[in-house]
Amino acid sequence: MDLPEYLERTADQVDKLIDRYFASETGELAKASAHLLLAGGKRLRPAVVLLAADAVKRGSSSDVMPAAIAMELTHSFTLIHDDIMDSDCTRRGVPTVHTKWDEPTAILAGDVLYARAFEFLCLSLASENAKVRAVSMLARTCVQICEGQHMDMSFGRRDDVSEGEYLEMVMKKTGVLYAASAAIGSILAGGSPIYTDALYHYGQNIGMAFQIQDDLIDLIAATDLSGKDRGSDLREGKQTLISIKAKEKGIDLSKYRKTLSTEELDAVINELDAAGVIREVQEIARELVESGREIISILPDSVERELLSGIGEFFITRGF
Amino acid sequence: MDLPEYLERTADQVDKLIDRYFASETGELAKASAHLLLAGGKRLRPAVVLLAADAVKRGSSSDVMPAAIAMELTHSFTLIHDDIMDSDCTRRGVPTVHTKWDEPTAILAGDVLYARAFEFLCLSLASENAKVRAVSMLARTCVQICEGQHMDMSFGRRDDVSEGEYLEMVMKKTGVLYAASAAIGSILAGGSPIYTDALYHYGQNIGMAFQIQDDLIDLIAATDLSGKDRGSDLREGKQTLISIKAKEKGIDLSKYRKTLSTEELDAVINELDAAGVIREVQEIARELVESGREIISILPDSVERELLSGIGEFFITRGF
Repeated sequence: MDLPEYLERTADQVDKLIDRYFASETGELAKASAHLLLAGGKRLRPAVVLLAADAVKRGSSSDVMPAAIAMELTHSFTLIHDDIMDSDCTRRGVPTVHTKWDEPTAILAGDVLYARAFEFLCLSLASENAKVRAVSMLARTCVQICEGQHMDMSFGRRDDVSEGEYLEMVMKKTGVLYAASAAIGSILAGGSPIYTDALYHYGQNIGMAFQIQDDLIDLIAATDLSGKDRGSDLREGKQTLISIKAKEKGIDLSKYRKTLSTEELDAVINELDAAGVIREVQEIARELVESGREIISILPDSVERELLSGIGEFFITRGF
Repeated sequence: MDLPEYLERTADQVDKLIDRYFASETGELAKASAHLLLAGGKRLRPAVVLLAADAVKRGSSSDVMPAAIAMELTHSFTLIHDDIMDSDCTRRGVPTVHTKWDEPTAILAGDVLYARAFEFLCLSLASENAKVRAVSMLARTCVQICEGQHMDMSFGRRDDVSEGEYLEMVMKKTGVLYAASAAIGSILAGGSPIYTDALYHYGQNIGMAFQIQDDLIDLIAATDLSGKDRGSDLREGKQTLISIKAKEKGIDLSKYRKTLSTEELDAVINELDAAGVIREVQEIARELVESGREIISILPDSVERELLSGIGEFFITRGF
């Protein structure tokens, strides 16, 4: 099976389960919790959980499906809270939760999904010991995600963010949830600590690459494809690898804060391209993905291991 | 040992552990997470965890200390998020987290404690199976707490809240965390399902009584004792058992929204007292506590069981 086919099949399975558990909710708070979950999404973290489980013990993916859902719930909870903090109005082509409802409801909607993530994690078919380790890992991961988001916000008030600081932020904000997805898949499927550790670092690397690509997409992809406002990072003066590299090359992006026309945006992209910024940023993402592929080469050769490598490749070639 | 002595000793132990884990944090987000935790508090939920454990298996309380901390962390996370939603400025005599920092930081600070609650729960000395059940219970409990807070907020936009709706809200907002504290103490200590269930319902009852007493305290207690603004519920037009009972007796409290002088507040209290409202509300709280005491009478006779009953009694006689 090739990767697009695998991802599509997995997303269908995840969508069905999410529908079963969340689509029939009636109360306003439950609806607000389910809103973003039901708006779709690529379900990439669940796919990583399932592939990691199968990669360490073929046939175990169905046992860890609740954990796959748990990672999607965790992702959704962080999006709901981040959207409040970042005052974002649109996500996945639908209004964000605090826009459709209000901020208090959005805070609670995120909190509900947060709890349900832990609830689902415990429903996996796995040893009790593995479940406890998975819960601890998810908990530690959530703390790091919060730290990453906090760093990201603090960057908005600074113009001297270093590449190292940016990479630490991305590792925490995005890397660790992919890391935990891969590692939890392995833990629950009974993978050895060596495999679990390799999968953790693989996930961290491809997750970081994912976020770097996200920043590129924000700049380049059309709004109707990404479901986000194109160039929003520039308008908000966000520090990204792109703006850090641009600054190194003497390109000042801060003048585009607040207002930026489509023509100006196209001109900026040409300037960044000519200076080699976009290529350098793409290169960093590629190195992360290739190192991720190498790390999991210690796992037994399997279709699933190849699909995991393929996910990394997909992360840095996707256009939305 | 009498109850005040027990609570003081337990609070000291909990304070020391919280200090050890949270006082030396350096980052702004970690400081914001620790802010309310370090401001003290009666540490009543931890005491309930420890007493429940000892009541089902003498000597097990030290094994479940991490779970006791977990319940305090959960409580603190809900306070941080509630304070944002309710726009409260002061708590435990210190500025609330979103006042001292900002809303985004307060959302994240709550989210950090939320995760750490699950992390601590898993550090208890207990069977892996018990830990998984405890995690599931805490997760379900957090969902209910969110539902309770959402109900509470929705009451502010209504003037036809029934006593039944109010009691459901209080059960979810406050009752279930005491319920989970008592039940998790029992689960981790290896208590039988019958004991665990009894302790759950005991906790639910005394938790509801606690919240009802809190509403009475908001009306009656001096600000410097409670650390909250006296009469704030009336000013905010909050629906409480007091306002519902008052309405039944033809006393209109809605005219005190926004402004309410100390003299007016004293007059209101006299009016409510004369109409029997305060006595009736106190009676409901007392019935809950007495029924809680009865429920745990199936547990073996022990000092700890008596102290648990004493906590219920304390909840409805405390003045702050």
